[in-house]
Amino acid sequence: MARFIKRSSKTIGLPPGSLVHVGESRTAQVKITVIDYDEQNFIEKEVSAEECFPFKDKPSVTWINVDGVHQIDIIEKIGLHFGLHPLVLEDIMNTGQRPKMEDFEDYIFIVLKMLYHSEKDDEIKAEQISLVLGKNFVLSFQETEGDVFDFVRDRLRNGKGRIRKVSADYLTYSLLDAIIDNYFIILEKIGEAVEEMEDKLIANPIPETLQAIHYMKRELIFLRKSVWPLREVISGLQRGESKLIHKSTQLYIRDMYDHTIQVIDTIETFRDMISGMLDIYMSSVSNKMNEVMKVLTIFAAIFIPLTFVAGVYGMNFSPDASPLNMPELNFFLGYPLVLILMASIGGIMLLYFKRKKWL
Amino acid sequence: MARFIKRSSKTIGLPPGSLVHVGESRTAQVKITVIDYDEQNFIEKEVSAEECFPFKDKPSVTWINVDGVHQIDIIEKIGLHFGLHPLVLEDIMNTGQRPKMEDFEDYIFIVLKMLYHSEKDDEIKAEQISLVLGKNFVLSFQETEGDVFDFVRDRLRNGKGRIRKVSADYLTYSLLDAIIDNYFIILEKIGEAVEEMEDKLIANPIPETLQAIHYMKRELIFLRKSVWPLREVISGLQRGESKLIHKSTQLYIRDMYDHTIQVIDTIETFRDMISGMLDIYMSSVSNKMNEVMKVLTIFAAIFIPLTFVAGVYGMNFSPDASPLNMPELNFFLGYPLVLILMASIGGIMLLYFKRKKWL
Amino acid sequence: MARFIKRSSKTIGLPPGSLVHVGESRTAQVKITVIDYDEQNFIEKEVSAEECFPFKDKPSVTWINVDGVHQIDIIEKIGLHFGLHPLVLEDIMNTGQRPKMEDFEDYIFIVLKMLYHSEKDDEIKAEQISLVLGKNFVLSFQETEGDVFDFVRDRLRNGKGRIRKVSADYLTYSLLDAIIDNYFIILEKIGEAVEEMEDKLIANPIPETLQAIHYMKRELIFLRKSVWPLREVISGLQRGESKLIHKSTQLYIRDMYDHTIQVIDTIETFRDMISGMLDIYMSSVSNKMNEVMKVLTIFAAIFIPLTFVAGVYGMNFSPDASPLNMPELNFFLGYPLVLILMASIGGIMLLYFKRKKWL
Amino acid sequence: MARFIKRSSKTIGLPPGSLVHVGESRTAQVKITVIDYDEQNFIEKEVSAEECFPFKDKPSVTWINVDGVHQIDIIEKIGLHFGLHPLVLEDIMNTGQRPKMEDFEDYIFIVLKMLYHSEKDDEIKAEQISLVLGKNFVLSFQETEGDVFDFVRDRLRNGKGRIRKVSADYLTYSLLDAIIDNYFIILEKIGEAVEEMEDKLIANPIPETLQAIHYMKRELIFLRKSVWPLREVISGLQRGESKLIHKSTQLYIRDMYDHTIQVIDTIETFRDMISGMLDIYMSSVSNKMNEVMKVLTIFAAIFIPLTFVAGVYGMNFSPDASPLNMPELNFFLGYPLVLILMASIGGIMLLYFKRKKWL
Amino acid sequence: MARFIKRSSKTIGLPPGSLVHVGESRTAQVKITVIDYDEQNFIEKEVSAEECFPFKDKPSVTWINVDGVHQIDIIEKIGLHFGLHPLVLEDIMNTGQRPKMEDFEDYIFIVLKMLYHSEKDDEIKAEQISLVLGKNFVLSFQETEGDVFDFVRDRLRNGKGRIRKVSADYLTYSLLDAIIDNYFIILEKIGEAVEEMEDKLIANPIPETLQAIHYMKRELIFLRKSVWPLREVISGLQRGESKLIHKSTQLYIRDMYDHTIQVIDTIETFRDMISGMLDIYMSSVSNKMNEVMKVLTIFAAIFIPLTFVAGVYGMNFSPDASPLNMPELNFFLGYPLVLILMASIGGIMLLYFKRKKWL
Repeated sequence: MARFIKRSSKTIGLPPGSLVHVGESRTAQVKITVIDYDEQNFIEKEVSAEECFPFKDKPSVTWINVDGVHQIDIIEKIGLHFGLHPLVLEDIMNTGQRPKMEDFEDYIFIVLKMLYHSEKDDEIKAEQISLVLGKNFVLSFQETEGDVFDFVRDRLRNGKGRIRKVSADYLTYSLLDAIIDNYFIILEKIGEAVEEMEDKLIANPIPETLQAIHYMKRELIFLRKSVWPLREVISGLQRGESKLIHKSTQLYIRDMYDHTIQVIDTIETFRDMISGMLDIYMSSVSNKMNEVMKVLTIFAAIFIPLTFVAGVYGMNFSPDASPLNMPELNFFLGYPLVLILMASIGGIMLLYFKRKKWL
Repeated sequence: MARFIKRSSKTIGLPPGSLVHVGESRTAQVKITVIDYDEQNFIEKEVSAEECFPFKDKPSVTWINVDGVHQIDIIEKIGLHFGLHPLVLEDIMNTGQRPKMEDFEDYIFIVLKMLYHSEKDDEIKAEQISLVLGKNFVLSFQETEGDVFDFVRDRLRNGKGRIRKVSADYLTYSLLDAIIDNYFIILEKIGEAVEEMEDKLIANPIPETLQAIHYMKRELIFLRKSVWPLREVISGLQRGESKLIHKSTQLYIRDMYDHTIQVIDTIETFRDMISGMLDIYMSSVSNKMNEVMKVLTIFAAIFIPLTFVAGVYGMNFSPDASPLNMPELNFFLGYPLVLILMASIGGIMLLYFKRKKWL
Repeated sequence: MARFIKRSSKTIGLPPGSLVHVGESRTAQVKITVIDYDEQNFIEKEVSAEECFPFKDKPSVTWINVDGVHQIDIIEKIGLHFGLHPLVLEDIMNTGQRPKMEDFEDYIFIVLKMLYHSEKDDEIKAEQISLVLGKNFVLSFQETEGDVFDFVRDRLRNGKGRIRKVSADYLTYSLLDAIIDNYFIILEKIGEAVEEMEDKLIANPIPETLQAIHYMKRELIFLRKSVWPLREVISGLQRGESKLIHKSTQLYIRDMYDHTIQVIDTIETFRDMISGMLDIYMSSVSNKMNEVMKVLTIFAAIFIPLTFVAGVYGMNFSPDASPLNMPELNFFLGYPLVLILMASIGGIMLLYFKRKKWL
Repeated sequence: MARFIKRSSKTIGLPPGSLVHVGESRTAQVKITVIDYDEQNFIEKEVSAEECFPFKDKPSVTWINVDGVHQIDIIEKIGLHFGLHPLVLEDIMNTGQRPKMEDFEDYIFIVLKMLYHSEKDDEIKAEQISLVLGKNFVLSFQETEGDVFDFVRDRLRNGKGRIRKVSADYLTYSLLDAIIDNYFIILEKIGEAVEEMEDKLIANPIPETLQAIHYMKRELIFLRKSVWPLREVISGLQRGESKLIHKSTQLYIRDMYDHTIQVIDTIETFRDMISGMLDIYMSSVSNKMNEVMKVLTIFAAIFIPLTFVAGVYGMNFSPDASPLNMPELNFFLGYPLVLILMASIGGIMLLYFKRKKWL
Repeated sequence: MARFIKRSSKTIGLPPGSLVHVGESRTAQVKITVIDYDEQNFIEKEVSAEECFPFKDKPSVTWINVDGVHQIDIIEKIGLHFGLHPLVLEDIMNTGQRPKMEDFEDYIFIVLKMLYHSEKDDEIKAEQISLVLGKNFVLSFQETEGDVFDFVRDRLRNGKGRIRKVSADYLTYSLLDAIIDNYFIILEKIGEAVEEMEDKLIANPIPETLQAIHYMKRELIFLRKSVWPLREVISGLQRGESKLIHKSTQLYIRDMYDHTIQVIDTIETFRDMISGMLDIYMSSVSNKMNEVMKVLTIFAAIFIPLTFVAGVYGMNFSPDASPLNMPELNFFLGYPLVLILMASIGGIMLLYFKRKKWL
């Protein structure tokens, strides 16, 4: 449930802009890394909060990555120096945000979810990433170390591609793109799981399959909640009303928008499939009950009349009292004839069920 | 049901703007509290209706809070003095309003619902709050004493944060924010209940679970009805067409808008989950019936043929009449052989059911 | 069904603007009442069609109410004199209109439904009301005598409130408001019925409950069809593009718009509830079947094995033929032991069902 | 199925504007009728393709009606003379069009469906009507002879109403109006069928009822597909951006638009009702099964224990071997007491079922 | 599943614009064909990547078709020469694109899906087609050889129709039109399958039918995903904001837009039908179970009481002990009377079931 509502009672009643960390409590030391580059130069180092201040006004592009948002003083110091609004700092520390994009003229603030599949809980987990795009710097705030940005770092280090030649907005785009690309990995995993479930469903629909379907449905509700608002975020960036985003970068953002739509489309497709699977499950349960009923009915309908016949000839009416009392019992062929009668009844019933296609 | 339609026949036929209290009847004395402040000064006192008149034209910010809307004369006096339209007064007294925002140029009128969880009825209850934002005053009308504004009052008293330095629109924002923040507490409660229900559902789906699901569904219908129109209300404030709302406050309102969307999102997520739970319930009932049927069928299919065999050898065909009449009865091993036959029939049936995976 | 499609074959093929009465056939004499007023004067009288002509050009506000739209000549005469377009007259006489508002510059034409609950058929019935708002007159056309306007008439007679001081648009608003206010009475009735049904449903879900749910669903479909288009009608008036509607009246129309939204909201809420009740019904039927099955299974599973045992010892194998043939029959404790055996089988079955929670 | 996709492989691969007849193959001779009129004059005659050419430039209004669109040369000749775009001609001949309106400045092209109920197949059938409104001519193309325009022809002949006094746009309106009016007849038929089905459903829900519901559902899908796009078509005409449509005619088109909305509304209402009927059907099937189960359970639960008792006293334990062996058999009142025991068991069971409300 | 998400992990982490082939791996040599034409001249030949460069600046219209997008160097060479953006090249090679249209001022880039029915897998398959419309050239990229463009090629060769007389935008339209026309063939196939399924469903609803319904549903989900975005693509072209598309071509694009809507409409209709079929299936399964239950109940209810009667007269109460012990056994007509009793019970039961309409 914690995945669905995170905004906790901790912040209730505090004035807006109050810095309170909302999320899993963490103890790890906050780690700040600076990457500063232009076409010729490249610096990468771990720094303290104060050490990253001078980069603000350097003409080269600076990416300051903060791993850990649970230490108020650090977030506050950085926020103050880079001129962030208190509400932005509050949002960075409160990890229950809905993805959104806010344009503060001097900088653009973007919050979104980095998703990963936790092997331990077999659940999709989300880590909140906050990005601040300034004139020539990008701040990124993550909940913990470890992210999907290594490819971007490699490209920066190697100086391959456009990335070292262009400005901070392209870096922001690259980071966002890395996060969205990563969604496809999650979708592939889900796709495989859906396929596997479908095969199982057709082979043998047991209650566990239903649990799995239900579980998958919840995962998709969660995924959808994390991804759906992205559409608006990216299209907000794409409209390009901010002068922080250059025209050349907008083409890339348009491409990223397509990817986002593709992610959303795929989630909806999975939802459609899952709801189809529920139908299949329900009707295969009905089918099974039908089969059980048929077996019961066949047995009952064949043997109940036979047992009745046997019961009749087990009655003790006294032949002595009257010749009308059960004369069959004394017939020469009484027993064989009754056996034949019984076999005929059974045979007729079998034929009847055969004609009804129950056998 | 009273929660769903409150507008009663009392008001039918009256001219518009007629003041009639619609809602739970109350007898408590209406209580008026004034808080008047600027950066240096702070006054807080309980007053009569007339005593709050002079505050209207003071340059300092005044918050007049009225607990109780069931006394026509008081509402009327205040309304007249502060220049409120008769329709506004009617809406204040009629507690069945849909949340809405109306801009009357001189003042903005906002109606919304303060929610709380009534322990007594185990139900979410709503209290109507009407806010009037004027040039340098805020009027708030509540149905009863007791609210979620204590945090705001404390901040005003302590003079902490921005609140004492800025104008009446920020106070209005703070009050709205306090109400919306409170929704998260309700959502957390529901979230816990949903989780608990889900665990129960998987462990043992009894009709009571269904009742609980149904009940929760109704609570969500109610919640949705109270919160959904808020989206429009807040976005109306955010568009900032009124000169009563300063630009600096709009950032805060935008933040509050995000919270509103989050509340709505979470309600929709809960609805999705609940509807998934209904599916689970229905199919687990089917599964249980299937199991019952299997037990019945297994018993019937094993014992009905055996009983038939026993019936056959209980027939009274006279061996005296013919050697063909039940000679088995006089065989040396007749009885043991029949017992073996019966055991074989039972065994075959068991194997058959095992192969069908019914056992 | 007549409530759902009224436009009958009578009008097919006629040129547009042809006057044909479509609706329940009526024989009552058409009754025309004129109320003419300004702040000082007030006239109220029953008139003939021709007698109401002079009121058209009087500066005072005139309300001409026509009870009965089945007499072509009267409608035609009035229409001609007041300059109504033939299509308007056609719409007035055809009582199967969808609520709509049409602005003809010189006058505004509004059609809507006045709802009432018919005790006789236990059904919601609709009567079509057509309103024509001209410069200083209002025409209203009703299907029969008897309406919800008595409160408005009283206010006009008493001269209380704003109504006598302001122009024809306010009178139109008052009439519309009276009709919409009346919807709340219908909604209250439905609300009570829904609540009652819900209680019954939980106590004892019988097929009659289902019929009632279905019936209520149809009533809501009908209600929705009558009310939904009102939203557009009122918001059309509210946009205030016509110079016939004064600015001061627009505030009142905005208020009325809120009421309309509230009506629609409540209808949707009822629909949600009803569909939830269907789910409850279906699953409680399943539950009941489950219970029936359990009783059957318990009886069968306990007594079928016992009957089999009794059957075995009812076989007639001859002990004379061999000592292996049913020696139990001659055991000293044979009978008591068999009884004990039977009791044990029964007891074990009961324990088994207890452990399965079927008892 | 042919009703749902008509666009056949015949046209695949042909250049756009290729004239190929798509639809039911027909052999009847194409029949062309010209009606030419102004306020004084009226000509009506059957002509060849060439004979209708001179009417193009006459100042009087000309209506050329073509019955049959399967002869390429005729359509081509007319199209060429009246300056129709090749794509228009292609659309006229391909009877699988979706209703649409296209404005070619010089003329407006409208395609829609004329519906009729085929008694033979008990199915709603659609015939495609293409209308071309030029400066002072109207071309209409139908698949076969026989249409709903007879009322319009009569009015033209008689010179009654506005129709002879006004221009070609009013004629177009009249034709469209005749088609839409005709939809109400179809709706009335469906309405009756729905009502009848509902009565049957409540009286005795048999599988045939389900078939009927399903069938009706398909008819509504078809109807909806034919009518829904009309909304856009008519609202396109109503926006009045073409100078071919006069202002006075627009009032009439607005009226027609209302009728279209009414048709669509009614279709949606029927869909709602039908889906409600499916629910009723499903749950009445459940109810019936429940009842069957109850009968079975009551019989089984009463007689199985009784049969067991009878079985016990049918055992052959030898009273000679021990006085404990079935001494009841030799009791003086053994038999009557057992009968009483059996009656009691039966009675208790009956009471139990009565208390459970199964009887 | 591969049909639903194709974007693979291969591209994750690469800088945007990186050329990686995503899709089924292929080994066939990439084949480039050039068709260059104006009204008089026509050239068609197979070329290497370099050989098609000179055509870029020729005034005649050039269509360069590339079969195979798995060879990076070729795509890159062409892209560079024709001035395509790296992102466009990336999209061309990544065959998991969502249909889209992008306007790069100098050229328009269109991606869409060519569908065909694979007989081998009995599945609808999609091949991605990328089109680039430049000033006087059209580039088309396909995954493999073999396409639906042969009709277009024939028309170009023969010089029939408009195609040779007009510019590159008309060629693009012709190619798109060929693809969309082809969708109708797929729809026809599905239509036939749906019809066949429906017939089977009514004749005998077996689990295999359900599988088929489910399978068809998945095909439609896939189809919908491929076709739905086309609406936006074509309407983007139709808006005609690019100067690359001439006014005369826009009429054709509008026509194509209608076809697209028709395709989407038909898909939705099929979805509606399929969901109706699921309902039919579910309720026919219920009906069948009902019938099975009835058979069981009839047999049980008739024979269980009879067996009980037989059981009673099989009891061994000793007539010697008392004259009250089973005196019937010694009655003169005991046996015949019991037989008559049994026949009566059976008859009454049959009558009862007949009246309940179970027989």
